[in-house]
This record gives sequence, structure tokens and C-alpha cells, in this order.
Amino acid sequence: MEQKIQSLASLGTKNFTVYLDEVSLKDGTISKRICIDHPQAAAIVPLISDNELIMVRQYRYALRRETLEIPAGKIDKGESAEECIKRELAEETGFEAKVIKWLYTYAPAVGYSNELIHLYLGSDLEKLGNKVNEGEISSLEILTIDEVLGMIRNHEIVDSKTIIALAFVSPLV
Amino acid sequence: MEQKIQSLASLGTKNFTVYLDEVSLKDGTISKRICIDHPQAAAIVPLISDNELIMVRQYRYALRRETLEIPAGKIDKGESAEECIKRELAEETGFEAKVIKWLYTYAPAVGYSNELIHLYLGSDLEKLGNKVNEGEISSLEILTIDEVLGMIRNHEIVDSKTIIALAFVSPLV
Repeated sequence: MEQKIQSLASLGTKNFTVYLDEVSLKDGTISKRICIDHPQAAAIVPLISDNELIMVRQYRYALRRETLEIPAGKIDKGESAEECIKRELAEETGFEAKVIKWLYTYAPAVGYSNELIHLYLGSDLEKLGNKVNEGEISSLEILTIDEVLGMIRNHEIVDSKTIIALAFVSPLV
Repeated sequence: MEQKIQSLASLGTKNFTVYLDEVSLKDGTISKRICIDHPQAAAIVPLISDNELIMVRQYRYALRRETLEIPAGKIDKGESAEECIKRELAEETGFEAKVIKWLYTYAPAVGYSNELIHLYLGSDLEKLGNKVNEGEISSLEILTIDEVLGMIRNHEIVDSKTIIALAFVSPLV
């Protein structure tokens, strides 16, 4: 158990806030913890056919590189995880998933973030009339599940939500 | 591509630093990004027998709860990932893994952290004479691989490195 004594400082954007907290450890020692107070998020494996999914390639500032990922986004205030992932899928790919199935909920970075990511499998996709949000996505890519599993086995995919969601769709080993 | 204009503020502990950066997005818009500059880390599935591993239970301040995880830690300056995981395994469990095999390297939180975690499988474990570091670990638990897979299938494990490492040891589905 680690007890918060006080927040010493914080940094924020409209999306989330980072706190530098002074904490008391279980042996009584006083220490500091950086803690991101992050909204929950949702991600989806959108099956556009029995064996193909839509993925997004986007620039990730923290990593200073592009990554290939499944569609995902932060849950807005008042929104459920299911509503969030349907909205994000529409915004990023222009598709609606008529059927979504929850796969798992995990914590990406237990050492410094309270973020939880809810993973879904989406099927029965239908094209919507909306304009896709091109602000953050570099490209959409349609790949077979076997191609994505091959990229994971070749260590070409680094994103935790993509690896974990695929591991619940098909064995990685 | 997102170009850094300037860092507006930062927060740090001895372990890592968080920056609030002003960035120029690919369409020219000016925005802000929170970015954790985090050392790389390493984690290990330590096989204490053919079908059993050692896990650690520890309080995670960001989540305000205990989690069950594989042993892990941050890579010190000048240390290799292999040296780090051998040191962390000794400190947290009191065991040395005579054989370690790299499984995968992934990015837990691509949205706001440059952390990369190197995952290993350790075998041929030998008890060391050292005192185990009890500062951060609540308890050590020896579980069979099937028990851990069962806990994952029951959604009892939330930690990304534990789920991904196990997915490379045995199918989750």
C-alpha cells in the first residue's frame, strides 16, 4: 500500500493530467510517484471479412515513429466503452460494426498510468457515409489475420493493444 | 509526422521525466502532447520448473490496487536488457536464470510514452544467497503456466507485459 501525501505538481492537456505525488511507502519511507490520470480507452479488431481486418497507421509522437495498430480511442465523458469504440471506428475507418464482442480489459502501463483499455472484436461491418478523420491517421490498411499474426511473429508490431487483442483472436505461438 | 516546437513544462522523478510539448501536426495545426521519456525496461517469465513460474504481487500506485505480474524493472544506465532482467529477477525473487531467451519487445503506451519493454523466458533457475528486496513486492507466488493462463482467461490479470509474455509462451485462446 502506498498512501498519497500530496500532489506536488501537475501537467495537463485537454485529454489527461499527469501528477507528481509525494507518497508514503509501506515501510514508511517518503517517495515520489508520477501518475497519469487517463480516461479509459477502447480498441477494436474490425473484421471486414471472415479473415481480414482494418488497421490504421499513425504517427506516434512519444515514439517519434509511425506504428500499425488496430483502431482505438479515449472514452468521452458520459460515453460507454461500446459507444466509444463504435464512434472511433466510424471516425477512423468510415465503417460501422453491427456486432461487437468484448475480448479483454487490460492496463497498458501499471507503473505510471491508471489507463484501462477495453478490447473488442467487431464483425458485420457496413460502410457509412461519413468522412474519415484524416487528422491523425496516415493510412488505412486491410490485412488478413494471418498477415498480422505474421507481422507480430516477425516483431514488426510494437503496440500493446494490437498484440493483446490479436492474441485473443488467434494463438500467437 | 508531428514536429516538436518546444517543451512548455516538465515533471520528473529520478526514474523518468514527463514533458508537455507544443507540436505542429501534419496539417499545420499547433497542438500539445504529453510525452513520457522513460527508460527501456525488461520483464521475465521465470520457469522454476517445466510448468511453473514465479510471479510477484505488488501495489501499483497509479491503479490504487495490487496486481499480479511477472518480475520486471527499468534498465539502468549502461546496462543491457539481459543484465537488467537478471538483476531484477535476483532482487525480486532471489533466483538466477541460467538460461534466458528473448521473446518480444513492445511499447506499452504508444499514445504518451516512449517506453519499450523487452520480454524474456528464463529457465534453469538457481537459488542465490541474496536477500530479496521487500520494498516494493508484497508477495512472491509460484503458479503453474496453466494456472496463469486460467487467470488471464478469467480476466484476473490486467498487466500488459504479463499478458503479452504469456501469449508468447502458450496460446491464450
